[in-house]
Amino acid sequence: MALSTRIETAIGQAVAVGRAGGPARLSAALDYAVQPGGARIRPTILLSVAQACGDDRPAVSDAAAAALELIHCASLVHDDLPCFDDAEMRRGKPALHKAFSQPLAVLAGDSLIVLAFEVIAAAAADAPDRAVALTRHLARRTGMPGGICAGQGWESEAEIDLRAYHRAKTGGLFMAATQMGAIAAGQDPEPWEELGDRIGEAFQVADDLRDAICTAEDLGKPVGQDDLHGRPSAVAELGLDGAVRRLDDILAGAIASIPSCPGEAELAGMVRAYAGRILPEAVREMVPGE
Amino acid sequence: MALSTRIETAIGQAVAVGRAGGPARLSAALDYAVQPGGARIRPTILLSVAQACGDDRPAVSDAAAAALELIHCASLVHDDLPCFDDAEMRRGKPALHKAFSQPLAVLAGDSLIVLAFEVIAAAAADAPDRAVALTRHLARRTGMPGGICAGQGWESEAEIDLRAYHRAKTGGLFMAATQMGAIAAGQDPEPWEELGDRIGEAFQVADDLRDAICTAEDLGKPVGQDDLHGRPSAVAELGLDGAVRRLDDILAGAIASIPSCPGEAELAGMVRAYAGRILPEAVREMVPGE
Repeated sequence: MALSTRIETAIGQAVAVGRAGGPARLSAALDYAVQPGGARIRPTILLSVAQACGDDRPAVSDAAAAALELIHCASLVHDDLPCFDDAEMRRGKPALHKAFSQPLAVLAGDSLIVLAFEVIAAAAADAPDRAVALTRHLARRTGMPGGICAGQGWESEAEIDLRAYHRAKTGGLFMAATQMGAIAAGQDPEPWEELGDRIGEAFQVADDLRDAICTAEDLGKPVGQDDLHGRPSAVAELGLDGAVRRLDDILAGAIASIPSCPGEAELAGMVRAYAGRILPEAVREMVPGE
Repeated sequence: MALSTRIETAIGQAVAVGRAGGPARLSAALDYAVQPGGARIRPTILLSVAQACGDDRPAVSDAAAAALELIHCASLVHDDLPCFDDAEMRRGKPALHKAFSQPLAVLAGDSLIVLAFEVIAAAAADAPDRAVALTRHLARRTGMPGGICAGQGWESEAEIDLRAYHRAKTGGLFMAATQMGAIAAGQDPEPWEELGDRIGEAFQVADDLRDAICTAEDLGKPVGQDDLHGRPSAVAELGLDGAVRRLDDILAGAIASIPSCPGEAELAGMVRAYAGRILPEAVREMVPGE
């Protein structure tokens, strides 16, 4: 089965559990938060790593992939709130708090976070050790002190360590992706941290480039947000050219970091293919000097 | 060790894990959200049930108790936000979003939810089956479709089923308390649902009574909120006298529902003692006709 089919099926099943018999508007908000999806990059990486490691319990891998995407969707819903980015649009449609309400946006995010942990526990009845390890890694990369909540929290500090900030805010869920993929397949997650860290770093640099270059129509969400909110950015630090060179270095390092495993070559190919999706040629061509 | 000492120690250890090395203001917000505590009723019930069931793994029970209280504290922080209750005060001090900021209040709530699941997973390395069951029960009573998020979500519906609303919003974490107490001690949680359900119902009726009768100074938080927000309330439905009679009936039913277990008599005594804390005599005396 194609990874995208596995991911959409697992997300659909998870949200169906969360909806059944609940209040109608909040139920609809859960669907709205996860559909239509973006690139589903994080769960795709998770399942790719699981496959590279043998994927001996696909139901556990699918649950882990769905859980990770639910956390990502929850973070988008909360980040879009007026007190953060105050975003009007997300994935080409009104942000959830605009389409529903602020209370339902807060609750939808909260519910998706909870559902993520529930999905892992529910899928792992015959592999409780993996469920516990998946829960610990997902929590570590989501909450405090080093997950995406911490990353967002750094924006409330007077002084920010740019590397720590990006590692938590964007890197968190990519490290969760590679490490949870290994755990779901019964492997040691530690050697997989670097790959996730580097992919996350690449993604952040690419996001900074897109924010600096693209139009809102290209992205389906507001641009120039980093500049507007005075947020740290690789483009501000290195310039456009420098940021593109940094991105290429990071991706090369990511491929070099892949641990030895049965599916190592396929996984390297996947990362190369993603490089094109992380920073499309069309964007790369907009950079002066490229 | 006294239950209150076990609870405060477990909460303190949990938040210390969440703080270590994270951004300073969000770290401080986590402390602010959990200290000073309220009555810690939910974790006290959890540990009381665990003790009644033998409490053969006190570290697991303590983690479950801390996790439950973290979820409760998270719900208070999010409920106090301007888009919900817009509360100025909580537990006699400014609400978290007033003392810090709205972004930090959203993030503190999110982080506490995540930390709750992390705490359970971290404590249960040698009892992964219990960790999985604790996670499933805590998630079920916290999120959608039947937990406290769902309860809050019912307030966005045009028509509310009062029983379903209270069962989710207030009952959820009391059912989690009794059932997680049983799970932490290795017992079947199903016979413990009714006790939690009834305690939750009693607590909601008492809360409605306090909201209708007390002054803000008595409670350290705003009163008259049900009326102000047009929320359903047992007092609006049954009158003051009727609500007090309902409360007494519910507590009698709660005691009668306690499953047969080694600590049954002590637990019944605890519930009776709590009846006085749930609705103090001073409040009872304010009800005309009592």
